[in-house]
Amino acid sequence: MTTPVSSNTVANSDIAIASPRFLASDNTSGICPEAMHYLLQANEQDDLAYGNDVWTERAANHFRTLFETDCEIFFVFNGTAANSLALASLCQSYHGVICHQLAHIETDECGGPEFFSNGSKLLPVDTPMGKLTPEGIASVVTRRNDIHYPRPRVVSITQATEVGTLYSLDELQAIREVADRYDLKVHMDGARFANACASLNVTPAEMTWKAGVDVLCFSGTKNGLAFGEAIVFFDHELARDFEYRCKQAGQLASKMRFVSAPWLGLLENNVWLANARHANAMAKRLSEGVRNIEGVEVMFPVQANSVFLEVPAVAQQYLRDCGWTFYTFIGEGGVRFVCSWNTSETLIDALVADLRQALAQRDQQ
Amino acid sequence: MTTPVSSNTVANSDIAIASPRFLASDNTSGICPEAMHYLLQANEQDDLAYGNDVWTERAANHFRTLFETDCEIFFVFNGTAANSLALASLCQSYHGVICHQLAHIETDECGGPEFFSNGSKLLPVDTPMGKLTPEGIASVVTRRNDIHYPRPRVVSITQATEVGTLYSLDELQAIREVADRYDLKVHMDGARFANACASLNVTPAEMTWKAGVDVLCFSGTKNGLAFGEAIVFFDHELARDFEYRCKQAGQLASKMRFVSAPWLGLLENNVWLANARHANAMAKRLSEGVRNIEGVEVMFPVQANSVFLEVPAVAQQYLRDCGWTFYTFIGEGGVRFVCSWNTSETLIDALVADLRQALAQRDQQ
Amino acid sequence: MTTPVSSNTVANSDIAIASPRFLASDNTSGICPEAMHYLLQANEQDDLAYGNDVWTERAANHFRTLFETDCEIFFVFNGTAANSLALASLCQSYHGVICHQLAHIETDECGGPEFFSNGSKLLPVDTPMGKLTPEGIASVVTRRNDIHYPRPRVVSITQATEVGTLYSLDELQAIREVADRYDLKVHMDGARFANACASLNVTPAEMTWKAGVDVLCFSGTKNGLAFGEAIVFFDHELARDFEYRCKQAGQLASKMRFVSAPWLGLLENNVWLANARHANAMAKRLSEGVRNIEGVEVMFPVQANSVFLEVPAVAQQYLRDCGWTFYTFIGEGGVRFVCSWNTSETLIDALVADLRQALAQRDQQ
Amino acid sequence: MTTPVSSNTVANSDIAIASPRFLASDNTSGICPEAMHYLLQANEQDDLAYGNDVWTERAANHFRTLFETDCEIFFVFNGTAANSLALASLCQSYHGVICHQLAHIETDECGGPEFFSNGSKLLPVDTPMGKLTPEGIASVVTRRNDIHYPRPRVVSITQATEVGTLYSLDELQAIREVADRYDLKVHMDGARFANACASLNVTPAEMTWKAGVDVLCFSGTKNGLAFGEAIVFFDHELARDFEYRCKQAGQLASKMRFVSAPWLGLLENNVWLANARHANAMAKRLSEGVRNIEGVEVMFPVQANSVFLEVPAVAQQYLRDCGWTFYTFIGEGGVRFVCSWNTSETLIDALVADLRQALAQRDQQ
Repeated sequence: MTTPVSSNTVANSDIAIASPRFLASDNTSGICPEAMHYLLQANEQDDLAYGNDVWTERAANHFRTLFETDCEIFFVFNGTAANSLALASLCQSYHGVICHQLAHIETDECGGPEFFSNGSKLLPVDTPMGKLTPEGIASVVTRRNDIHYPRPRVVSITQATEVGTLYSLDELQAIREVADRYDLKVHMDGARFANACASLNVTPAEMTWKAGVDVLCFSGTKNGLAFGEAIVFFDHELARDFEYRCKQAGQLASKMRFVSAPWLGLLENNVWLANARHANAMAKRLSEGVRNIEGVEVMFPVQANSVFLEVPAVAQQYLRDCGWTFYTFIGEGGVRFVCSWNTSETLIDALVADLRQALAQRDQQ
Repeated sequence: MTTPVSSNTVANSDIAIASPRFLASDNTSGICPEAMHYLLQANEQDDLAYGNDVWTERAANHFRTLFETDCEIFFVFNGTAANSLALASLCQSYHGVICHQLAHIETDECGGPEFFSNGSKLLPVDTPMGKLTPEGIASVVTRRNDIHYPRPRVVSITQATEVGTLYSLDELQAIREVADRYDLKVHMDGARFANACASLNVTPAEMTWKAGVDVLCFSGTKNGLAFGEAIVFFDHELARDFEYRCKQAGQLASKMRFVSAPWLGLLENNVWLANARHANAMAKRLSEGVRNIEGVEVMFPVQANSVFLEVPAVAQQYLRDCGWTFYTFIGEGGVRFVCSWNTSETLIDALVADLRQALAQRDQQ
Repeated sequence: MTTPVSSNTVANSDIAIASPRFLASDNTSGICPEAMHYLLQANEQDDLAYGNDVWTERAANHFRTLFETDCEIFFVFNGTAANSLALASLCQSYHGVICHQLAHIETDECGGPEFFSNGSKLLPVDTPMGKLTPEGIASVVTRRNDIHYPRPRVVSITQATEVGTLYSLDELQAIREVADRYDLKVHMDGARFANACASLNVTPAEMTWKAGVDVLCFSGTKNGLAFGEAIVFFDHELARDFEYRCKQAGQLASKMRFVSAPWLGLLENNVWLANARHANAMAKRLSEGVRNIEGVEVMFPVQANSVFLEVPAVAQQYLRDCGWTFYTFIGEGGVRFVCSWNTSETLIDALVADLRQALAQRDQQ
Repeated sequence: MTTPVSSNTVANSDIAIASPRFLASDNTSGICPEAMHYLLQANEQDDLAYGNDVWTERAANHFRTLFETDCEIFFVFNGTAANSLALASLCQSYHGVICHQLAHIETDECGGPEFFSNGSKLLPVDTPMGKLTPEGIASVVTRRNDIHYPRPRVVSITQATEVGTLYSLDELQAIREVADRYDLKVHMDGARFANACASLNVTPAEMTWKAGVDVLCFSGTKNGLAFGEAIVFFDHELARDFEYRCKQAGQLASKMRFVSAPWLGLLENNVWLANARHANAMAKRLSEGVRNIEGVEVMFPVQANSVFLEVPAVAQQYLRDCGWTFYTFIGEGGVRFVCSWNTSETLIDALVADLRQALAQRDQQ
């Protein structure tokens, strides 16, 4: 099996040479201590299956507190399922989902949204900084108005985006307005939702229902869990019978408590936020560390926990030889590093040092 | 209900002003006399349902003779179904279908292929003249090789293309070669297959299985039937259980003889070819007729029965006021005219005259 | 290809022996003269595609008059599609459809409803006379109330039923009440809707929306068309975006006028009703004709145009040898005859005579 | 939320009265120590995502050793997904899956198999002891041979069955033979595969590919994991592109090592077998313990880890008041207890004592 990649390729062909050092994605990290604490707790005694345990309702209530509203919470295994199920609940097979051309649902779910919805078409838009704009959305809606093309029904935004940038609250509000104009629902892919909250210093409520988001997929996996995403509906009607949808689609865990209890570890004491802040800080440290390395360019504003760098091919090879794992960004010649809750300053500093060395070597050639 | 359109808009808002004159598509024509003859014949007595009548096998055998091989034939109602079912038989939900960016399956089936296949993703390519190239196909296959993106499994080519151009036999052969290299099946959308055969002066066999096509969707509707497309499999294994697929998908006519018998009208005496030749000749007449009208440009080589013209907006409006129905070609400022088995020289000449008048008026303004 | 059959087998193995005489189904008849008249009319000149012609709106309006309400009408090709699309619009993939165990959607659509809805489960009930009862419906709803089983969402009733019986208006009303109690929509498979109206001597309005039906699939094919079913929504909200659903699923005819115009032939002058009355009368004639043939039993009350008879195996063979085509009813030893708009008294009388002869021969053996 | 149940109802309404005591299912138990050991191990350092870690290949190889063949292994999250994906890989949407009427895929997956396969119909058979028979399978295949009904393509057997009985190797072989006769694939739902191996004292190889099984879904969850089922293909061709299918369907874990590493805990030192043996022994202990309690009847042979008892309603209530959780078996008046890797003799003995007390109380009333 080769390393699965997105619109990019993990450069791990040489991991035999040196011990791997993981910055390819925030999903290479493990379970954070607070989540593990609850996982062990939940294992201390038997409990009812399918979410009827003592942990699941507790975790759901914690979400309601966090979001300051009586929202509906569903726990599923992973992000493909969370996004695909949420979208399937918002549209029928003949509807379209407007998303950015770099959106994960378009580039890295192997047709998951189309599968779960039985054919909804993704309608990608190519706008700057990995972010949808009101104009971009409107152009997709208005370019066709006939039944021979899927009718746009949902706008899907990723916060933080695939290139590590952020929508401001104003930008979210503007998207809500265009969505209202064209009768669209708003879905937020929150694979890195925590990092966005931390970076913008806004509350989860402000960044979701107060800004017009109908459904959020909040990733726990990338924030320190083994598995587990929370789908948060802010409109009860949209969540109608959603538990059946999850069950039918293979996303109802029998031992649900091993998903929900660890979420308590993240939610209590705002560990989710601390984890995200740390990851963001490490990304910032990396981007600042490379600022004065000649030949290395930061490709996008570093607003969350991802850093995209343009690095010469020969320097990329040097990094691989040093054991660094990272994705390359097709067509751009860039590389991606993602920081996580457990990324250490030492690791970042070592990467900066290796990058400096890599570029220095190149110049000597 | 507004006029359904594709990547274009029927300009029929003013059809109250003048009697409509139809060149918007070859599907505005009716049933040709030879097809009608058989339709009436088939109605003379009762017969078994679901294709067990005396006409269906006869029509299927006629196809086998026409294609000079023991192919499998299935009759369905329309092109959306024909293409979508054929593609669904070639790929699984997690596979991808490489097609041109202007392909009808991408732009005008409202997600039909994704629906019938339960999620197969169309992978569009933008190459010149509406035609796929071996390089374009290869680039789609090779840009990703991971399980996070649908695995390409089919190349779908449209012959004649959506912009009225044609693949030569050599071009088809080159596509077969790249398909073999990457283990891809080749599907041909033959919405205007007859026009292509007529224009290239090649046999149906030469343009399909001899050129490496695995499955053809041969349109009868655009060639003079009321309804009815023939799906032709040149590989028996690919057709396995396909009759069940048609039935489940609502494409098995109970009174099948009213689809299959009219096909005999097209197939006997090569009426299909005569119809296509006539349509092609009318398209040629139109393109030649406008050649020396200043301000009108022919946008693509006129190789089949479609003519795309660049016409100034004011002149387009003049045509509408005269009752002409046509599609506009979004983003190009162009208009499309399609000729059919019953398009008359008089009609073409009237259009040319109106175009000349339209441009003359513009110049006076 | 063998004759496709349902829960039964067409006995046509010997049709070479004698000229076939068709009573296997009402879909072995052709196009009635009034429908053909309009088909020919619609072919007299070109027209816009996809239902934007002059016939389609006219036919839709005629339906609105017939049903005495502002309903929404969609024309599709056949019954599999009509029922499956209507059901798909009423339920999600994780919902269940309560139907009779003998319902066509359960026994003869090759999984069409499951396919179009992406997995909705049919929940069959076995109650007498081929008819659902309020108790039967309630028992399905109440036997499970957990998310591990599809949630019932629709009741589908067939009027007339698969065994030629009818729901009275009171029975329909009682089903509506149980549907309301459990938040279910009511779908009516009207493959033989005309025959039911004719037999009960009630109006289309009385038998549908006034009796609580949400969506009706009204078959034109069995009533005298070549193809064409009308899906009639009595609730506009349920019909939302349904035109996209039809298009995506391959059920939007480009030359729509050849479906809709012939409907005018049925609707004008109540030809649909006359056709149905005739078919019903022929069924009655058959059932009365066999009344005193010893050894032949009428299996179900003959309330519409189908007659189910218990006939000894040897007598069945005699009929086959005489060229009669009919279905056998598995597990019952019965045979089915269905009369149509063009079934003649002569044909019925000949069948009665052959049946009498068949039984007489048996007694001699 | 009420306790989700199958064809039965968890009797937990009174769990407030006494501390719950869990015998409702083997999925109320937690993670066994050996699995937890590896989960903690896998968390000690970061690793590549999507199965490219150091644990996944190791676990897969362990399966190959266990099954004594070069099989293909895929890890997914739960049983709904495992069975549904495996079935979807064996059949197309218009195919049928023959299964027992009590099979979990029929009664408790909320239409999962129909959803993942886009419409394959389950064809249930009602034969004794929860087990399919060659005659039952043959009867489904032969009762229809037309395209109006899904073509049977797969036999799905559950080992151990839903009622705790087992297929002998001879019975499996006989099913393989009828499958070969009708060109059917054989799928084994191994939700309690380990218990079956332990009880029959046969090897995994003997009970699968040597007995003609094409695909096995081996449950880890019920054997001591938090989550995780292994889909084992014994025919490489059937597994073609299956990794794409898993990804698209939301069953590819990014932090895969937390599914695969714990499997090592089960596979090493045959912990899977020891866990199963223990559970089976506890079931045996329960069935023997109740043998001489008058008024309690064992409903099915206790061959694995489930015990079905007929218990008077009043006695059931007594048990509920004591805190016992169990499912009731609709229409039978029975109750189900399932033992697990951590069910203690003390717990079983307490249940037996409470049952004895419950029946004694009843007799006093």
